[in-house]
Amino acid sequence: MSLTISIDAMGGDHGPEVTIPASLDCLKSNPDLKLILVGDEAVLKPQLTEALIEFKDRLTIHHASQCVGMDESPSKALKNKKDSSMRVAINLVRDGQADACVSAGNTGALMATARFVLKMIPGVDRPAIISTLPSIYGHTHALDLGGNVDCSAEHLFQFAVMGAELVKAVENIENPKVGLLNIGEEDVKGNEQVKAAAKLLENSSLNYIGYVEGDSLNAGSIKVDLIVADGFVGNVALKSIEGAAKMIGTALKEAFNRNILTKFAGLLVYPVLKSFKKRIDPRLYNGASFLGLRGLVIKSHGGADVLAFKTAIHLAEVEVKKDIIRKISEQVEQTLARRESA
Amino acid sequence: MSLTISIDAMGGDHGPEVTIPASLDCLKSNPDLKLILVGDEAVLKPQLTEALIEFKDRLTIHHASQCVGMDESPSKALKNKKDSSMRVAINLVRDGQADACVSAGNTGALMATARFVLKMIPGVDRPAIISTLPSIYGHTHALDLGGNVDCSAEHLFQFAVMGAELVKAVENIENPKVGLLNIGEEDVKGNEQVKAAAKLLENSSLNYIGYVEGDSLNAGSIKVDLIVADGFVGNVALKSIEGAAKMIGTALKEAFNRNILTKFAGLLVYPVLKSFKKRIDPRLYNGASFLGLRGLVIKSHGGADVLAFKTAIHLAEVEVKKDIIRKISEQVEQTLARRESA
Repeated sequence: MSLTISIDAMGGDHGPEVTIPASLDCLKSNPDLKLILVGDEAVLKPQLTEALIEFKDRLTIHHASQCVGMDESPSKALKNKKDSSMRVAINLVRDGQADACVSAGNTGALMATARFVLKMIPGVDRPAIISTLPSIYGHTHALDLGGNVDCSAEHLFQFAVMGAELVKAVENIENPKVGLLNIGEEDVKGNEQVKAAAKLLENSSLNYIGYVEGDSLNAGSIKVDLIVADGFVGNVALKSIEGAAKMIGTALKEAFNRNILTKFAGLLVYPVLKSFKKRIDPRLYNGASFLGLRGLVIKSHGGADVLAFKTAIHLAEVEVKKDIIRKISEQVEQTLARRESA
Repeated sequence: MSLTISIDAMGGDHGPEVTIPASLDCLKSNPDLKLILVGDEAVLKPQLTEALIEFKDRLTIHHASQCVGMDESPSKALKNKKDSSMRVAINLVRDGQADACVSAGNTGALMATARFVLKMIPGVDRPAIISTLPSIYGHTHALDLGGNVDCSAEHLFQFAVMGAELVKAVENIENPKVGLLNIGEEDVKGNEQVKAAAKLLENSSLNYIGYVEGDSLNAGSIKVDLIVADGFVGNVALKSIEGAAKMIGTALKEAFNRNILTKFAGLLVYPVLKSFKKRIDPRLYNGASFLGLRGLVIKSHGGADVLAFKTAIHLAEVEVKKDIIRKISEQVEQTLARRESA
């Protein structure tokens, strides 16, 4: 099967410095993969002379004259950057030349451009950002992580339908457990949107398990496959977790750096600390998918290094193979049909 | 000065098993402290025979025949448990017999009872829950952590006024830096309430520094003294941090428990791991204050152990000494007066 991914080679804090080596590593490890690197040919070509020979039929450069800045406003990027590496990479998905696009560019501009170029799946009001978080049970999927503020119950319901379909396909599970993020597990808890969304979920065909609290993202009392939240709450939760991990990492480093003895102790247990770090390494969870669009767009963390960017490309490979967009579109259609006949 | 604290001795997951030893430890370490243990005399008295002699004038038992369950609904607790240890402990604050009350009982019932018994400070619409979180800069104060869902801009503004006054007093700083929790630092980010609250804060006398993201709770790019959020978002953030810490702790334990060699390595670095753990030990941050009421109520974590419950009692001591309620009341009054004259 065809597996072609367009890469916004100029995006992210590091641009080609990261996107090129990550792309080449992915081409090496998957002989079925084709990549289109989108960006300034004058910058990219000199760095790819050997690779263009080595991966003759699988690596191409697609020129784009502009670049979207990491702080550029979405509206300005949409209006003034019609030949940006980001926009052109997404155009390739729209035109069927690529099956998915990966970008480490700024989230707002990427979302606005993807929505403008690819359009929404009929029946979906807003795109949502879904990602995977490490948990004591392995990992959990969560959405929306920042696409939307002020979501209605209907939006939350649509996120759940789309997210569950993605989890089903990616994890090969029949009925993923869906939880709704709230400030308590009792029925009376929460705001109006969440309470109304709970009713919609209870009456759906989804495997809805009820309200879950913030700790369920990483370490709840039971395993949840998909956690649904509005984008404001989801984004704050995600960033809070990042902050907690950073603080704990800093404290651990400080403890081992206190004096010569603790430093020596740190050397002794280096392999243990390394295996611990690997278990929760955020680079191995890099990559968020925009759900609800008529094409696959994967957003990498802006500060991604080579390993992290490879994870994002790998996520795109998996979602293409699993035919995510077709499955979500069909599921949304079926859900709408069930409602009309109800 | 008088420093009398009423303790809901029956509250929490462990009741007197935790509240009694924690109380006695606090009496030992602070000779100015007086405690009133509220609860079933038949249960408490036999455990306090010696202590009642040792701390003759500083320890008393106040009988209360009922107990609020950890899952009991706030409305039922209010209606049916008029002689609960929680309610009576709060009554003592209202009646001036205690300067503050500490309870590990269920948050909803404690909040509803405290609000009913103590009433609000004039000019404050809703009580908010404030607590301290460890951060790479030492620690940060944050509110609201779960008292209110669907806060208006005015509510968020009131939280900021009250929280800043508490931070000023407790930390001995003149102009605490106040940040508003949002999903980005740019002006365009956020929902309508947050944007409107930002305008109120910009036009206030507070040292408002702008929007901050979730990572600022533990490890932002700059030190923030007070972070303001609505209760839904604040609670999810707090619980998300708890989950992240639990997952990271679990992963660290697993890494050291993998085999006999890693276990031995763990023994070698035990002192280092212990100092690391102490730095972020949640028990040393236990205790949340309800702000906006005409009396001091400190909520301890329900699952608190002796050390954690002692931290909550200590927090009550500090807030009594700093005369928090008077200061907040005066600040709210001044803020209202400034508005009327504007």
